[in-house]
Amino acid sequence: MKTLLLIGIGAGDPEHITVQAINALNRARVLFVLDKGQTTDDLVRLRLEICRRYIREPSYRVVQVSDPKRDSATPSYTQGVEDWHERRAEVFTQLIEDELADGECAAFLLWGEPGLYDSTLRILDRVRANGCSGFDYEVIPGISSVQALAARHRIPLNEIGQPIRITTGRRLVAADLDNVVVMLDAHCAFEAFVDEDIDIYWGAYIGTADEILIAGKLADVCEQIKQARSAARERKGWVMDTYLLRRRPVDRPDSYMKVRS
Amino acid sequence: MKTLLLIGIGAGDPEHITVQAINALNRARVLFVLDKGQTTDDLVRLRLEICRRYIREPSYRVVQVSDPKRDSATPSYTQGVEDWHERRAEVFTQLIEDELADGECAAFLLWGEPGLYDSTLRILDRVRANGCSGFDYEVIPGISSVQALAARHRIPLNEIGQPIRITTGRRLVAADLDNVVVMLDAHCAFEAFVDEDIDIYWGAYIGTADEILIAGKLADVCEQIKQARSAARERKGWVMDTYLLRRRPVDRPDSYMKVRS
Ligand SMILES: C[S@@+](CC[C@H](N)C(=O)[O-])C[C@H]1O[C@@H](n2cnc3c(N)ncnc32)[C@H](O)[C@@H]1O
Ligand SMILES: C[S@@+](CC[C@H](N)C(=O)[O-])C[C@H]1O[C@@H](n2cnc3c(N)ncnc32)[C@H](O)[C@@H]1O
Repeated sequence: MKTLLLIGIGAGDPEHITVQAINALNRARVLFVLDKGQTTDDLVRLRLEICRRYIREPSYRVVQVSDPKRDSATPSYTQGVEDWHERRAEVFTQLIEDELADGECAAFLLWGEPGLYDSTLRILDRVRANGCSGFDYEVIPGISSVQALAARHRIPLNEIGQPIRITTGRRLVAADLDNVVVMLDAHCAFEAFVDEDIDIYWGAYIGTADEILIAGKLADVCEQIKQARSAARERKGWVMDTYLLRRRPVDRPDSYMKVRS
Repeated sequence: MKTLLLIGIGAGDPEHITVQAINALNRARVLFVLDKGQTTDDLVRLRLEICRRYIREPSYRVVQVSDPKRDSATPSYTQGVEDWHERRAEVFTQLIEDELADGECAAFLLWGEPGLYDSTLRILDRVRANGCSGFDYEVIPGISSVQALAARHRIPLNEIGQPIRITTGRRLVAADLDNVVVMLDAHCAFEAFVDEDIDIYWGAYIGTADEILIAGKLADVCEQIKQARSAARERKGWVMDTYLLRRRPVDRPDSYMKVRS
């Protein structure tokens, strides 16, 4: 048997890592780091920094793998994702077969929380279904960008006793606006709701030295967020942002913008 | 200025703690542990165990406070919670005034993630609004029971590109059943949906030595969960459980039950 550890490493701050994750990192002989191309070199660097800081025995091996790109030309979103998962399953199968001896333990360093908009678990199911079965796996939870957002803005994720929705930019709809966290939004989906009486708590590069936080009534800060976002993407070549929208007529926060000093 | 650290300590496993949380614990001179009465002595013990394990300098002080009880006779749920928060604000004000000198730093050890169904942030707002203002505060995220549930069942929280809902037993409705995580459920709210074609991934005391996990088609495992839950509550005097419901016609898991060996 080979063992795979799917380790959540937090959403940007190396101190997000848990003791459980550190112990798991130290069990692994091989560390798989998926490399999504030039623009996210920074994200690979953070993973290597985590290994350097927290792995006690320096004899570990890092295997950096180029993640196959998703074909955004595929007309159906779900089909596009399916095809992409299949190609990633092939890459994973090869990693498991070539890079890992029987009885050995490998780790995937996963951004944020492994259960939240991360495909590794699904791809491993597919690897199994495709006939590669000599492995078992464990999942180690990690601090997600949702939690990092709430902590940095010092807000609760829910209103008293009320539900929370977490969704993607693509799926954000008016019915969600009472209380919703949005991830994976490449197009500032919040802009469509600028006339609604809602607050936004927005954050980019949360937990890193580039962190930007902006909050306030959406109508007041919408443009400021769009500008901060595109300026930052220009400067760094990539951007990762998450935000919470909330309908809350009382106790509205004064708007603010914060960058790390 | 006094500083309060709202530290998420994870949902049951002392190894859920993050490096950021450990560093925060080590900044605090005083640790506030809220004691909700006899039945949750275990939860106080876990907090003390965390202090013992992770605080390097043994000169810290633990202040254990009896949390005022919520009056469940109040007809309106929200009003009941409001009154309760007001009484807790009085307790917090006293703690801040009596137990903490100027320039000192205190920590609240909060279960799971501070942003998720935890009232500490809201109570501090109220403390401020009531006129006690010589303090600032920071929030340190922690592994929530939602993440612990997903990790132990080794499932993603979302379907590909789909939203997630997190709600309470009281608020669970049929419209949520596509994909929903339920917390704070004293009455097995899932039972109302036993005729729906959905899967359940249920966990109690997740991350602790008493952990119980049950998963399968709801109709198949509903009774088993109810029995396991009431037997466990009988035995321990309290129970904390969380579950995910998902409408998923394909790839249904074989049902299983796991307890720690
Ligand atoms: C593929 S998802 C992975 C989410 C990850 N598993 C988590 O728990 O945060 C990537 C999305 O997460 C959000 N995200 C991740 N890290 C972030 C950060 N440091 N700051 C802001 N948003 C972040 C962004 O919305 C981004 O589009
Ligand atoms: C007042 S809420 C606090 C939630 C906490 N802030 C978190 O992030 O998990 C308490 C609820 O959390 C869930 N919960 C907390 N710890 C749990 C555990 N170890 N196992 C199962 N459920 C848990 C239960 O649904 C419980 O009713």
